[in-house]
Amino acid sequence: MIIEHDVNPDLTEERKKATFDPFKLGNFFWQGQLQRRKEILAYVEAQGAELSPRMPEVFMNRMEQMEDVARLSVAMASHAEKVIDVFKPEEQFYFNSLICGFNGSPFHLHLIMAVPAMINSCDDDQATEWLPKLLNREVIATYAQTEMGHGTNLRALETTATYDPSTEQFILNTPTITATKWWPGALGKSVNYAVVIAQLWTNGKCYGPHPFWVQLRDLDTHKSLPGITLGDIGPKLGTPSNDNGFLRFENYRIPRRYMLMKHAKVLPTGEYLPPLHAKVGYTSMMYVRSMMIYGHAIYLAQAVTIAIRYSCIRRQGEIKPGAGEVKVLDYTTQQYRLLPVLAHVFAIAFTGLYINQLYYTVIGDINAGDVSLLADLHSLGSGLKALTSWQITRGVEQCRLACGGHGYSDASGLPSLYTMVAGSLTYEGENIVMLLQTARSLMKMSAEVSYITDNLEKIEENEQKMKNPISGYIFRKPSISSRINENSKWSFTSGSLTEFVKDESIQVWYHSTYLVELRRIVPKLTFYEIFTISYDFESDWVGDSDCVVAPTKIFFFQVLDYLEAFEHNSRRLILSALDYIQQQKKLGRSAEEAWNEAGVLLCHASKAHTQTFMVRIFIETIPKIEDIAVRNVMEDILWLYISYELVHSAVGLLEEGFLSSIQMGIIRKKMFASLAKIRPNSVALVDSFDFTDRELRSVLGRKDGKVYENLLEWASNSPLNEHDVLPFHEKYLGSAMREARKKREEMSKL
Amino acid sequence: MIIEHDVNPDLTEERKKATFDPFKLGNFFWQGQLQRRKEILAYVEAQGAELSPRMPEVFMNRMEQMEDVARLSVAMASHAEKVIDVFKPEEQFYFNSLICGFNGSPFHLHLIMAVPAMINSCDDDQATEWLPKLLNREVIATYAQTEMGHGTNLRALETTATYDPSTEQFILNTPTITATKWWPGALGKSVNYAVVIAQLWTNGKCYGPHPFWVQLRDLDTHKSLPGITLGDIGPKLGTPSNDNGFLRFENYRIPRRYMLMKHAKVLPTGEYLPPLHAKVGYTSMMYVRSMMIYGHAIYLAQAVTIAIRYSCIRRQGEIKPGAGEVKVLDYTTQQYRLLPVLAHVFAIAFTGLYINQLYYTVIGDINAGDVSLLADLHSLGSGLKALTSWQITRGVEQCRLACGGHGYSDASGLPSLYTMVAGSLTYEGENIVMLLQTARSLMKMSAEVSYITDNLEKIEENEQKMKNPISGYIFRKPSISSRINENSKWSFTSGSLTEFVKDESIQVWYHSTYLVELRRIVPKLTFYEIFTISYDFESDWVGDSDCVVAPTKIFFFQVLDYLEAFEHNSRRLILSALDYIQQQKKLGRSAEEAWNEAGVLLCHASKAHTQTFMVRIFIETIPKIEDIAVRNVMEDILWLYISYELVHSAVGLLEEGFLSSIQMGIIRKKMFASLAKIRPNSVALVDSFDFTDRELRSVLGRKDGKVYENLLEWASNSPLNEHDVLPFHEKYLGSAMREARKKREEMSKL
Repeated sequence: MIIEHDVNPDLTEERKKATFDPFKLGNFFWQGQLQRRKEILAYVEAQGAELSPRMPEVFMNRMEQMEDVARLSVAMASHAEKVIDVFKPEEQFYFNSLICGFNGSPFHLHLIMAVPAMINSCDDDQATEWLPKLLNREVIATYAQTEMGHGTNLRALETTATYDPSTEQFILNTPTITATKWWPGALGKSVNYAVVIAQLWTNGKCYGPHPFWVQLRDLDTHKSLPGITLGDIGPKLGTPSNDNGFLRFENYRIPRRYMLMKHAKVLPTGEYLPPLHAKVGYTSMMYVRSMMIYGHAIYLAQAVTIAIRYSCIRRQGEIKPGAGEVKVLDYTTQQYRLLPVLAHVFAIAFTGLYINQLYYTVIGDINAGDVSLLADLHSLGSGLKALTSWQITRGVEQCRLACGGHGYSDASGLPSLYTMVAGSLTYEGENIVMLLQTARSLMKMSAEVSYITDNLEKIEENEQKMKNPISGYIFRKPSISSRINENSKWSFTSGSLTEFVKDESIQVWYHSTYLVELRRIVPKLTFYEIFTISYDFESDWVGDSDCVVAPTKIFFFQVLDYLEAFEHNSRRLILSALDYIQQQKKLGRSAEEAWNEAGVLLCHASKAHTQTFMVRIFIETIPKIEDIAVRNVMEDILWLYISYELVHSAVGLLEEGFLSSIQMGIIRKKMFASLAKIRPNSVALVDSFDFTDRELRSVLGRKDGKVYENLLEWASNSPLNEHDVLPFHEKYLGSAMREARKKREEMSKL
Repeated sequence: MIIEHDVNPDLTEERKKATFDPFKLGNFFWQGQLQRRKEILAYVEAQGAELSPRMPEVFMNRMEQMEDVARLSVAMASHAEKVIDVFKPEEQFYFNSLICGFNGSPFHLHLIMAVPAMINSCDDDQATEWLPKLLNREVIATYAQTEMGHGTNLRALETTATYDPSTEQFILNTPTITATKWWPGALGKSVNYAVVIAQLWTNGKCYGPHPFWVQLRDLDTHKSLPGITLGDIGPKLGTPSNDNGFLRFENYRIPRRYMLMKHAKVLPTGEYLPPLHAKVGYTSMMYVRSMMIYGHAIYLAQAVTIAIRYSCIRRQGEIKPGAGEVKVLDYTTQQYRLLPVLAHVFAIAFTGLYINQLYYTVIGDINAGDVSLLADLHSLGSGLKALTSWQITRGVEQCRLACGGHGYSDASGLPSLYTMVAGSLTYEGENIVMLLQTARSLMKMSAEVSYITDNLEKIEENEQKMKNPISGYIFRKPSISSRINENSKWSFTSGSLTEFVKDESIQVWYHSTYLVELRRIVPKLTFYEIFTISYDFESDWVGDSDCVVAPTKIFFFQVLDYLEAFEHNSRRLILSALDYIQQQKKLGRSAEEAWNEAGVLLCHASKAHTQTFMVRIFIETIPKIEDIAVRNVMEDILWLYISYELVHSAVGLLEEGFLSSIQMGIIRKKMFASLAKIRPNSVALVDSFDFTDRELRSVLGRKDGKVYENLLEWASNSPLNEHDVLPFHEKYLGSAMREARKKREEMSKL
């Protein structure tokens, strides 16, 4: 227990209620690194002002923030090797967040964007020449891909790199206004190099986007080089200290060997040698996306730490009359708002760890010439990027709102956190496009689904596919036989695919074969009608006595029942989207038009598939927790997570008849019971994340709970408070009021 | 049609597709004032720089923004009477937004907060003395209620005003740190007076919070007066030009007559005279809340104008291969994201107009001594404040995300709009508290519901209640007899309250009586079990052949069918929340504990009730549209609105068995069909709102569609771009890189 003196007694009271040791949970959360974190913290604190911002960032303008971040970045780099293992990203990340908060520094972007891009794209000679300079910070680089008119659709990028065999150079050009590079972080003023993605032209042919290593500024004067126009793109919702920039080329020449040639190559003659696999060029994006997920969990953990601590300090209203105002976390509405967010932190963190490992596995495989898992990583990474960025953005906003009015103040730290994480919905791939990428691979896979077949080869192939830990469930036939309603005769219904006649003479298959059978029984019913929109709707069919719903016999008393429901939901959405596309094609639409028509359904399917994955990972993580007290509280969190998520994904399962009202009742009861169970451990749970006040930068989230006494002090930093009367008061409002008074005095004299 | 030259042809193409005249719709939306708006605009434009910000606000720091807003406010005031009718709030609002964007000015707050508070709280003598000074802008005031430790729970305010009969003065004090006034707009630096809410003490007794008129600063020097500490509370998520302030009193004395005495009074002796009605003191809050709703619609209309125009300019990806990149609004996913937001604009606007009128009716009634509608206004206003502020915040965020990466840039105008509207979730009453206020009156009403009774007096009373346009539906017995399933014998089910046996011998009642009957049939089933959580769950009951769902025979081909579904859903949630509370009480909980336990259910009930109200108002508005082409397109919008809202509120109706999958299919089909129908009119619809580029302050939302060519120019305002190399570059990053290079050169020499 973390019981310290000189702490708000409301927080101490909460900490005493803990049923587990926050240090042990923290050590699990931080993968055994909790002690290391404390060592790094102690080192940073010992450096005093040198490694601290000169005032809370929010009181500085952009130029001042950039200057302070530049100072801190250089100081941070000079200390890094003395205290952290610079090859461990998690230590880098923590060290950075202690010093720069969640403001990126130019070196941070350099390390998480440019260096990995170079590692993944340089051939051996290029790596030998350039990587030491990058790692040694002799140059600072960024990754310049996005253009003003082109974001996630890489193929449409307009910047050109045209090979000139006579000089063995590439000529870079920005042919249109929309081709202007726009958004790359630190590009405007800070970096002197960039990995630039441009359309490669050689021998009169375009080979699509490829990476180039491009010097942008003079190493001595830092002035932008001739042929290059560079600048800051202006202020944004968040991240004010980042000089996201624009870049234009005008016949800017670079040597042939500045094309990064690990995968594709251009020979001196201009001959183009293609890469091993079309998507290997995307590995840098995959790296960033897979690293993002765990980072998402950390941001959300910061927000929920602030909100839960403050909710045990803030008192408002009475529950028992006369007993005084209560802690707002004692309201069920506040628990319902915050504790599911806490559960999301763990779900996202566990998923993040999984996908990190998967990334390194895939990179190892690629280097060994095996690209078999690449598509899985790409598909899963896209869906997770979208789903988790939504969850954290909504989650941080919930935390902000849970802090009432003070959540709107920068004193809470939540506005900066919100405006920063909100960027993740769009950067590194717009979320809807991300979901549609995941859907692309789901549709490809599900087209191969065949639950009942006599073909032995097919059966073996199927069994192989079922083993895939990410998508195997799609190939598993749902265990519907356990759900036969003994009493109903024709018990499939509008939307119920899990119930069917117990008649051995009828082949009941999922997916298209199933439909054929269903159509035999109710000829007017099509698969698509069941799931989504009723074509040629015949009113006499509704309410037909053949149509009854008898819900499944799952009681939702066990975790795996929930997983089955998520899998069922996700499989259902995937197969119905596929079926809809096939229906549309039969109606004469092109494959692309059908895809567009199905867009919303495809997004639903991808979300459900990704959510199912997260649920599975969470369930699989619990047994890995050794300490029993920690495992018990994490089981409570898991129950909250799966019940809350299922309640909020239930609409399709209810519509289909998979879930009944009684079952919903059980699930909801579990959800509310979990809230009550977790309530006493709430502060201890967020304490486990081990954030320091340095990182949180929040008056509301202070570890000592001394919120109100520090709000006034915090506000004293406001530049407006340097004056009792603002310098321009008399010029405008003062003289206007004086005039008005004078005029009336004169009027009254008349 | 608004077809102009020198416009992006992509927008012109859209405008040509319109099936109606945007001017006519605009004139309806602006209640016949479209021509007036154009006159006001022309006047403002003619004044040039005097009424324009000196640069886009986002490039200025807070101090610079405050100075520019002070300049604009004074200029605006000096021009106001020449061009607008200053007694029409809508003209004031428009004039202000043309000049100050959506940044509040000190005069704006003065007019919308302080003046109405004074009008509602001054007795005749006080009004005669002070109101002319306020209206004449001889002083600037704000409304100071919220304290650091106390927001929505007025009764807990700590600031005291203690009457001293010996001097006939009140002594104001801030007894604790949490009693510090915190948040009032313009309080920190701009105003010199405030309406201060303080606990009134007289003759040793506390009479609760009352309003006082308090001078804060010297009229000549503008210095804060002795006994008063004033300042800015620091930066926030949004509204940087607003000096939200703090205020502390130390034995600060004001004359007795500075207590505002329209309702309650303190006589010279100290005797306290109470107000006519306990809630009349809240009328200022009700004014602000009822005015907010229409304002919400306008903000959302601005966001959706930006996003829809830009979505017809931005091209990304191909639908037909080889046909070039398409406008992103051609993606169904983008339509699904934006067009429901457009529908919300109208729904919120129509509701806003209704509640504005209701407010004036109620104020008229109160002045005539009739407070019968006050509770209705208070209840409805609270729910609408919560629901619409969520809708606009989510809607603006959707619009921002629909603009991809550029939505994150301040060039879109959307970050400022978002951070401003996000405040509305909390200010003027935290949303959860607002919903619980609405729930309070719903519970009071529904406890009186009695669908079947022999008592004639009761029947008459009921019929009276049914006539209430806001809550009448709760008292109407659902027309369940039309939904009997002829074939089923015992066809009520888990969750289905709309289906029941066609057996005249059984009294089928809604609400408690109904339950008694149900319990007779299935003794273990309680009302609460049906709706929410299953207590004493008996597994053998699930799947029982008695339990069948036969959905209602509503086909959802008519608008009123939708209204019936919304009413049903809302009544269901209200009655089940009531029942849950009663169950909890039977289990031995106090009324207050039961209320807290039911918190989440109560919020759901309030939301549904408010949503039902909005649907009804939208439906009732359509026939008021005279132009047929306009009415047709507004019917499309209505269909989208009700189908989208019903799909997203369907979970309970499905659970209960009111809706079947087939019906969901019809509703969803209607929703998607509406999207496709509205798509060609999208740009014309947002053109109807008639926003000028002055108001939108958005490069993406430009009326001429010239987005990309103006992004670079906009960014040139960035103070960072005054330098190619930032002044501090060499000091930090420059010298660090130089050092690193030097060190390696030296190493390589060794």
